[in-house]
Amino acid sequence: MIPRYSRPEMAAIWSPETKFRIWFEIEAHACDAQAELGVIPKEAAEAVWKARDVEFDVARIDEIEREVKHDVIAFLTHLAEHVGPEARFVHQGMTSSDVLDTCFNIQLVRAADILLADLDALLAALKRRAFEHKDTVCIGRSHGIHAEPVTFGLKMAQAYAEMDRNRRRLAEARREVATCAISGAVGTFANIDPRVEEHVARKLGLEVEPISTQVIPRDRHAMFFSTLAVIASSVERIATEIRHLQRTEVLEAEEYFSPGQKGSSAMPHKRNPVLTENLTGLARMVRAYALPAMENVALWHERDISHSSVERMIGPDATVTLDFALARLTGVIDKLVVYPENMMKNLNRFRGLIHSQRVLLALTQKGVSREDAYRLVQRNAMKVWEQGADFMTELKADPDVAAALSPEEIEEKFDLGYHTKHVDTIFRRVFGEA
Amino acid sequence: MIPRYSRPEMAAIWSPETKFRIWFEIEAHACDAQAELGVIPKEAAEAVWKARDVEFDVARIDEIEREVKHDVIAFLTHLAEHVGPEARFVHQGMTSSDVLDTCFNIQLVRAADILLADLDALLAALKRRAFEHKDTVCIGRSHGIHAEPVTFGLKMAQAYAEMDRNRRRLAEARREVATCAISGAVGTFANIDPRVEEHVARKLGLEVEPISTQVIPRDRHAMFFSTLAVIASSVERIATEIRHLQRTEVLEAEEYFSPGQKGSSAMPHKRNPVLTENLTGLARMVRAYALPAMENVALWHERDISHSSVERMIGPDATVTLDFALARLTGVIDKLVVYPENMMKNLNRFRGLIHSQRVLLALTQKGVSREDAYRLVQRNAMKVWEQGADFMTELKADPDVAAALSPEEIEEKFDLGYHTKHVDTIFRRVFGEA
Amino acid sequence: MIPRYSRPEMAAIWSPETKFRIWFEIEAHACDAQAELGVIPKEAAEAVWKARDVEFDVARIDEIEREVKHDVIAFLTHLAEHVGPEARFVHQGMTSSDVLDTCFNIQLVRAADILLADLDALLAALKRRAFEHKDTVCIGRSHGIHAEPVTFGLKMAQAYAEMDRNRRRLAEARREVATCAISGAVGTFANIDPRVEEHVARKLGLEVEPISTQVIPRDRHAMFFSTLAVIASSVERIATEIRHLQRTEVLEAEEYFSPGQKGSSAMPHKRNPVLTENLTGLARMVRAYALPAMENVALWHERDISHSSVERMIGPDATVTLDFALARLTGVIDKLVVYPENMMKNLNRFRGLIHSQRVLLALTQKGVSREDAYRLVQRNAMKVWEQGADFMTELKADPDVAAALSPEEIEEKFDLGYHTKHVDTIFRRVFGEA
Amino acid sequence: MIPRYSRPEMAAIWSPETKFRIWFEIEAHACDAQAELGVIPKEAAEAVWKARDVEFDVARIDEIEREVKHDVIAFLTHLAEHVGPEARFVHQGMTSSDVLDTCFNIQLVRAADILLADLDALLAALKRRAFEHKDTVCIGRSHGIHAEPVTFGLKMAQAYAEMDRNRRRLAEARREVATCAISGAVGTFANIDPRVEEHVARKLGLEVEPISTQVIPRDRHAMFFSTLAVIASSVERIATEIRHLQRTEVLEAEEYFSPGQKGSSAMPHKRNPVLTENLTGLARMVRAYALPAMENVALWHERDISHSSVERMIGPDATVTLDFALARLTGVIDKLVVYPENMMKNLNRFRGLIHSQRVLLALTQKGVSREDAYRLVQRNAMKVWEQGADFMTELKADPDVAAALSPEEIEEKFDLGYHTKHVDTIFRRVFGEA
Repeated sequence: MIPRYSRPEMAAIWSPETKFRIWFEIEAHACDAQAELGVIPKEAAEAVWKARDVEFDVARIDEIEREVKHDVIAFLTHLAEHVGPEARFVHQGMTSSDVLDTCFNIQLVRAADILLADLDALLAALKRRAFEHKDTVCIGRSHGIHAEPVTFGLKMAQAYAEMDRNRRRLAEARREVATCAISGAVGTFANIDPRVEEHVARKLGLEVEPISTQVIPRDRHAMFFSTLAVIASSVERIATEIRHLQRTEVLEAEEYFSPGQKGSSAMPHKRNPVLTENLTGLARMVRAYALPAMENVALWHERDISHSSVERMIGPDATVTLDFALARLTGVIDKLVVYPENMMKNLNRFRGLIHSQRVLLALTQKGVSREDAYRLVQRNAMKVWEQGADFMTELKADPDVAAALSPEEIEEKFDLGYHTKHVDTIFRRVFGEA
Repeated sequence: MIPRYSRPEMAAIWSPETKFRIWFEIEAHACDAQAELGVIPKEAAEAVWKARDVEFDVARIDEIEREVKHDVIAFLTHLAEHVGPEARFVHQGMTSSDVLDTCFNIQLVRAADILLADLDALLAALKRRAFEHKDTVCIGRSHGIHAEPVTFGLKMAQAYAEMDRNRRRLAEARREVATCAISGAVGTFANIDPRVEEHVARKLGLEVEPISTQVIPRDRHAMFFSTLAVIASSVERIATEIRHLQRTEVLEAEEYFSPGQKGSSAMPHKRNPVLTENLTGLARMVRAYALPAMENVALWHERDISHSSVERMIGPDATVTLDFALARLTGVIDKLVVYPENMMKNLNRFRGLIHSQRVLLALTQKGVSREDAYRLVQRNAMKVWEQGADFMTELKADPDVAAALSPEEIEEKFDLGYHTKHVDTIFRRVFGEA
Repeated sequence: MIPRYSRPEMAAIWSPETKFRIWFEIEAHACDAQAELGVIPKEAAEAVWKARDVEFDVARIDEIEREVKHDVIAFLTHLAEHVGPEARFVHQGMTSSDVLDTCFNIQLVRAADILLADLDALLAALKRRAFEHKDTVCIGRSHGIHAEPVTFGLKMAQAYAEMDRNRRRLAEARREVATCAISGAVGTFANIDPRVEEHVARKLGLEVEPISTQVIPRDRHAMFFSTLAVIASSVERIATEIRHLQRTEVLEAEEYFSPGQKGSSAMPHKRNPVLTENLTGLARMVRAYALPAMENVALWHERDISHSSVERMIGPDATVTLDFALARLTGVIDKLVVYPENMMKNLNRFRGLIHSQRVLLALTQKGVSREDAYRLVQRNAMKVWEQGADFMTELKADPDVAAALSPEEIEEKFDLGYHTKHVDTIFRRVFGEA
Repeated sequence: MIPRYSRPEMAAIWSPETKFRIWFEIEAHACDAQAELGVIPKEAAEAVWKARDVEFDVARIDEIEREVKHDVIAFLTHLAEHVGPEARFVHQGMTSSDVLDTCFNIQLVRAADILLADLDALLAALKRRAFEHKDTVCIGRSHGIHAEPVTFGLKMAQAYAEMDRNRRRLAEARREVATCAISGAVGTFANIDPRVEEHVARKLGLEVEPISTQVIPRDRHAMFFSTLAVIASSVERIATEIRHLQRTEVLEAEEYFSPGQKGSSAMPHKRNPVLTENLTGLARMVRAYALPAMENVALWHERDISHSSVERMIGPDATVTLDFALARLTGVIDKLVVYPENMMKNLNRFRGLIHSQRVLLALTQKGVSREDAYRLVQRNAMKVWEQGADFMTELKADPDVAAALSPEEIEEKFDLGYHTKHVDTIFRRVFGEA
C-alpha cells in the first residue's frame, strides 16, 4: 500500500483511527451484553458509550503502547482516560484476539463492500461499452493470429461476464469473513457467555464464528485473499487485451489521452498504454498476497501469532491495491477510445481470406468433392496471399468456382452478418437483454 | 501425479481412455442436436452412437496423431474407423476447443465429485472422533505455550467446521467449472446453432457457458484450483496439529502403527508421524498449482494455447494429490491413537498454575484490590514454579488468601468443568447436536 | 513430468533404475572407505563390487518394499541377493538419508549438467541468429508502441546475454547441490567416521556437506529450484517476444512450419505460434515449483520428512520440464523464419515520423528556439498522421524548415545508420566480438 | 513496508530524498562525461555540480509532477531552479529509464550492503552461541521424535553454515544488480555515446549493463528477490527451531524476556515466542515478493512499464522487511536463554532407551546373534517403556546380557561422549576452528 496506488476511502479503513473506533464498538457492545447478563453494572455499560463520539488520540495510545508493550491494553488504558473508573468493566472475560480478529474481519468486510461497489462501477462501464459496440465488427484472434470476425461489444460482454462472476465470488468471500468471535482465551467461553458474542455479532452485522480457538480460523482469510487474487487475474486479462489493441500495428483501441497530456505531438503515434501496463503490474502484486494468506492457515495448536505480521501487510496492501486497480480499470474502459475503422481495416487485411472456410464449405455443399473444393479455394487464396489480389474477385473469375457458385452466392459468403447473427443471443445470456 | 501418491479412481479420470470416451459423448450428443435441427441426417447421428460401447484404441489414435499432428483430428479419424462414412457429419461447425474445454470441465467436475466424497468421509471421521472425545480434557496452547484447558473433541470439532467450509467452497468451485461450450471458432456460433450447446450441456449435466471466446474463460479454473489450494492448507493445519501432539515430549496423540510396522521395539518411542509429515509436503504442492492456474487467466485476445500445457499438468496433479491427501488424512483421523492420560499429565505439568487467573479474579471479586490480589497469586505461583510446590496447597496455606477464599472456594477454581461448560453449545453450533 | 513434455535423457535420471544404481555406488564406495578404516573386512567391500554390473530388478525391490515398508532396506535386501552374506557389512553406521539425500543431489547435478548443455545449445543458436541479423533493422517498441530503430540481431544478443547470465546462475546452483552427506543419524558421525563421507564425496565428484543434520539442508535446494524458475522466466521472455513478432499485424518473424504441417493453406496467414505459447505455459509451471522448494527449508529440528513428497514431484517435474522447454526454444530460435522486409515495412509505417525527434534536435542545434522547432515539427508530423503524407517530403517543402536545414541535412536525419552505429560496440560487449 | 517492521537506515534508502539525490548524481556524472566528449560545455557540467549539496524539495517536485505528469521531468525542472540555464544541458540523449533503472539498482545495491552487514551480525551471534554451547548436549530429533544426542552448539553451527551460504548468495545477487545503463531510447546509444555510461558506472561503483533495451533486463532483479526469498526461508527455519524449543513441554531455550516485560508472573510459564512467530510471518512475506519479480521478466519487446508498479512496492517491502527480520533474529539469538539442564532432562526422558541401538550393536559384536540380541534389548526396553524402569539398571540385571557384556561395557554404551566425539571436526569444517 503506497500513496501512489491508494484511494482515500479504502486507505481510511486501515487507519489507526478506524481501527480504534471499531475496537471501541466491539468493547461497548460487549459491555451492553455483559450488563444485560448481569455480569457488569448497567451504569458501567452506559458510561462506556460516553466515548461514542470521542476522537481517540492515536499518538497518546502509541505512547502508552511503548510503555505497556500491548496494543489492546494501551487502547483500554486510553479509553479509561475518557470513560473514567467504569472502564475497569470493559473487556471482562475477553481476550485481545476477540477484539483484533473481529476488528480485522470488519475491516475486510468494509473493504469488500468498497470492492463490490468498484465492481459495480466496472460492470456498468463494461455494459455501456458492450451495448455501444455490440455491432462494431472486428477480427477475432486466436494465438494472436486473425481467425474469424467478432464484435468489440462481444469483447466487452466477455469481460462483463467474467467480472460478474468475480462479483459473485467476492460477495461469497465477504460472507466468509463476516464473522465475530468473542470467545475468550482458547475459545472455550470459559470466562464469557456465548450470548455476548451473539449480541456483538448482531450489532455489527456479523455472524458468530461457530468455533474459534482464540483466533478466527484463517482458512476464511485464505479464501478471501485468493478471491482477490483471482479478480486481479481478470483485471490483468482485460488490461492485456487493451495493451494488445493499442499496439502500433493494431491500434483498434486506445487509452484516453487528455489534451494536455504529454504523448509527443511530434510523434503522434507515441501514446503508450501506461494505465493498463500499470494494471498488469498491480495484478501481479495482488496475486502474490494470496500465498502468505494460505500459509497462515496452519497455525500451531489453538493459535500462534505468525499470521499477524502477514495480515498487517496484506490486509491493506491487497485491498487498497485492488481497489485502486478496479477504479483505474473502470476509468480506462469508460474513456477507451475505440477505432471501428481500424478494426475494419485490420479485418480486411487479407482481402477476404478469412472467409475461405465458408467458401470451402459452400463448394462441398454444392457437391464438389472435399479434395477438389480445397484445391479450388487454395489456388485462389494463394493469389491473394502472394500477389495481393482480392479473394472475392478471384473466386468469381475462377471458372471452376463459378461452375458451382453464382456471384451472389459467393458474395453471401463474405457477409459479416453471418458471424454476428448470434450476438443478440449471447448478449441476452450475459445481460438478460440485447 | 506420481503413482505413489495416486488413487486409481481419481487417476482414471485423467486416463486417455476416459478422455476419448468423454470426447465421444460430446460429439455424439452434438450430432443428435444437429440432426434434430436438420443440419445433418438423423441416420448419421444414429450411426455415431454405434460406437457407444467401443473401447477406443489409444495406441492407434496416438499413431494417427503422430501423422496429422492434431489430437482431435486423430480421434475423429479413429472414430470414423468404427462409425464408417457417416463420421464425416461428426464435429460439424465445431472447433477443437469445444471438445477439449468441455471435456476438461467434465473431468474437473468428476474430480470434484470424488473430492466431495473424500471430504464427506473426512467429515464423518472428524465428527466421530469429536464426539468420542467431546469431554477429553487437554491443555489448550497459544504460541505453543500452555494456556487454558480445552477438550480434544473441540480440536476435532474445529477441524470439522473448517473442512465443512471447504466442502461448501468445493461445491461452489465445482459449480464454477460445470459449464459446456460448443460455440465454434472465436465463440460466435457463426457455424453452429447455440441450441446444440444447450442440448449437449443438458445431456452432460452442465450449464452452458454464457459467453466463450473459443475457449471457456480461465477465471473459472483459477477459482477452482485456488479452492483446492485452500483445502490443502486446511489439510496442512490438521497435519501440523497431529505432528505437534505426537512430539516425544507431548505425546497426546499418535498416528496408528500396525503391529507389523517397523517403529523400533528397541526404541519404542521412535514412532514418527510420517503420514502427517507427508501430508504437509503434499499440501505445499497443491498450493503451488494455484499460481499457474491464475497466470492462465490472461490469455491473449480470443484465446492462445499457453494454458494447455499448464492444465495437462495441474489438472491431474492437483486433483490426484489432493484426493490422496484427503484419503490419507481420513485414515489418520480414523485410527488416531489418543492418550487422554498423557493429556491430563501435560495439563497438570504446572501443578495448578493454569488456574491462577481464576484465583486472581476470585480474590478481586471478594474485595481484594487488584494489586494485592496479584501479589498474593504471584508469591504462591513462584513457589510452584521455582520449588515444584502444588498451587492449590500453597494457596490454602497462605493466610492472606485464606482470609478471602475458603478451601472450597479455592478448590472450585481448579474445576476443569469451568472450562468445558460451553462445549455442548459449541458442538451444537458445529454439528447441530451435542 | 508428463511424456508429452519429456526428453528421454533427462527422464532417465529419475528412473528407478538410475536411482538404485546411484544408491549402489554410494554404498559400495562407503564400503571401500570402511574397509580402509578397518571397520569392515576388505573382502566384504570387494564382494559388494561384484554387483557393479548388475541390472537391479525394480519389480523385485518394489515387492520387498511392500513387505518391509522401507525403500532403502528393500534395496539392501535385494542387493544381498546378488552379493551374498557379505552384504551384511553394507550401510554400516549409515542412515537412509545418507543414501537418499546424496542420491538426490547426484540426480540434480546430472540434471544440471543436461540443462547446462541445453543452455549451451540455446546460446549457440542465439549467437548464430544474432550475427546473422546483426544489421537487420527493425523498429524498437516500448509499451508495444513504435519507438526508435534497433536490429533483430540486438534482440537475439539481448536474449543471449540473459541466457548467459542464466548459465552462470545454473553453474552456481549446480555447485550448491553438489554435496554429499554420510553422517549417520542426526548427522553427528557417532556411528561412522567422517573419512567415509570424504571418500564417497571424492569418488562421486561432490563436496562434503560441512554440517548435515541427518539431512542435507534444504536451502541448497531452494536456491536450485529458484534458479530454474528464473531461467524459466527468461524462456517466457523470449517466447513472448516471438509471439508478438508473429502476430498477424506484425509478422516480423514466425515459428518454422514444416511443409507437411497443417496451418491451413486456404488461410495461409493462420500459422499459430503454438510452440512459444506452449513455452509460456511451461515457464509458469517451472516457476511454480520454486515455492514448495522454499517451504521445504524450515524442517523441524534435525529433520522431518515433509520435504520428501515435494521432491519426489518437483525433482523430475522441474528439471524435465525445463529441459524440454530449453530444447524446444533452441529449435524455435534455430529455425525461426525472419521477415526483414516486413520489419522495414512496419518501421516505415509512419512514413518517417520516428525520426521527428532527430529533426527537432537538428532544428534547435541550428538556433531555432525549442518552441518554434517543436511547432515546425508538429505541423508537419500532423500532416503525416492525418493525411498520410510523407514526413521527409513535407519537411523539405516547409519553407521555415528549409530555412534552417538543407535537403541533405534533412535526409541525414532519416538515416537508419544513426541508430545502428553502436551495434558493434554492444556485440563486442556481449560476445567479445562483432 | 510498514513502520512497525522497518528500520530507519534501510527505510531511508527508499525515501524520495535519497532517490532524488541518486538521480542527481547520475545526471551530474553523465554531464561530466558529456562535457569531456565535447557534447556539452564544460561550464554546464560544472554548473550542475553546484546543486551538490542542495536538499531537494520533495514537495516542490511533487507539485511540478502533478502538472507535467512525469517524474523525471519534474525533477529536472526543479533542478533547473537550482542550477540555472545550464540545466538545459542535463539529461541530453538520455531516457528516463536510464535514470530510473540505474537508480533502482543503486538502491538495491545499498540495500544489499545493509543486508550483508545484517548477515555478518547474525553470523557473529550464531558463532558466539555455537562455541558457547559447543558441548551442551541435547537430544536430536527427527520427525519431532527423540533420536540421538547432538549439542546445542551444533544447532547453532548448522544455522551459521546456512546463513553463511546465504551471505555468499546475497553477495552474488548484489553483483547481479550492480549495473548501470545509460543507453538512451531502446538502448542503442543512438543519442548518447557509450562512454558516458562507462563513466557514470565507474563513478557509481557499478558495471555497465552489456546490453539494455531502454531498461535493464529484469532477470537480474528476479534473481535478486528470489535470493532474498531463500534467505527468508532460512530465517523461518531458525525461527521454527526456537519456537519448538520454547514449547512448554520442551523448554530447552527461550526468547529473552526483559524483567519489565509482561509475561504474566502469575503464570510464569506463559512466555510466548512472539519474536520468532513474528519472524515466521515476515518470512512468508519476503518469499511472496519473489513471484511478481519473476513475472516481471517477460516485458514486451524492448520494454513495457508493468514492472514499475511491482518494484515500487517490492523494492522497499522486501528489503526493509528482510532487514528488520535479520536484525530481530540476531537479537533473538544473541539473548536467547538456553536451559542445559532441561536439555539433559528431556534427553533422559526415556531413562537410557536412546542408547538401545548401541547396546544392540555391542551384543552382536560379542557374538550374540542379531535375533537374540534384539530380543534381549527389547525385553529390557519394554520394562523401561511400560514400567518406568531404568534401562542401564535393567541391562545389568539381565543375566543373558551380563553374560555378554560387563557392567563397564554396558556403562560405556551410555556415554554421551560417543555422540559428540566429532563435534570438533564439524566445527572446524564450519568455522575453520574448533
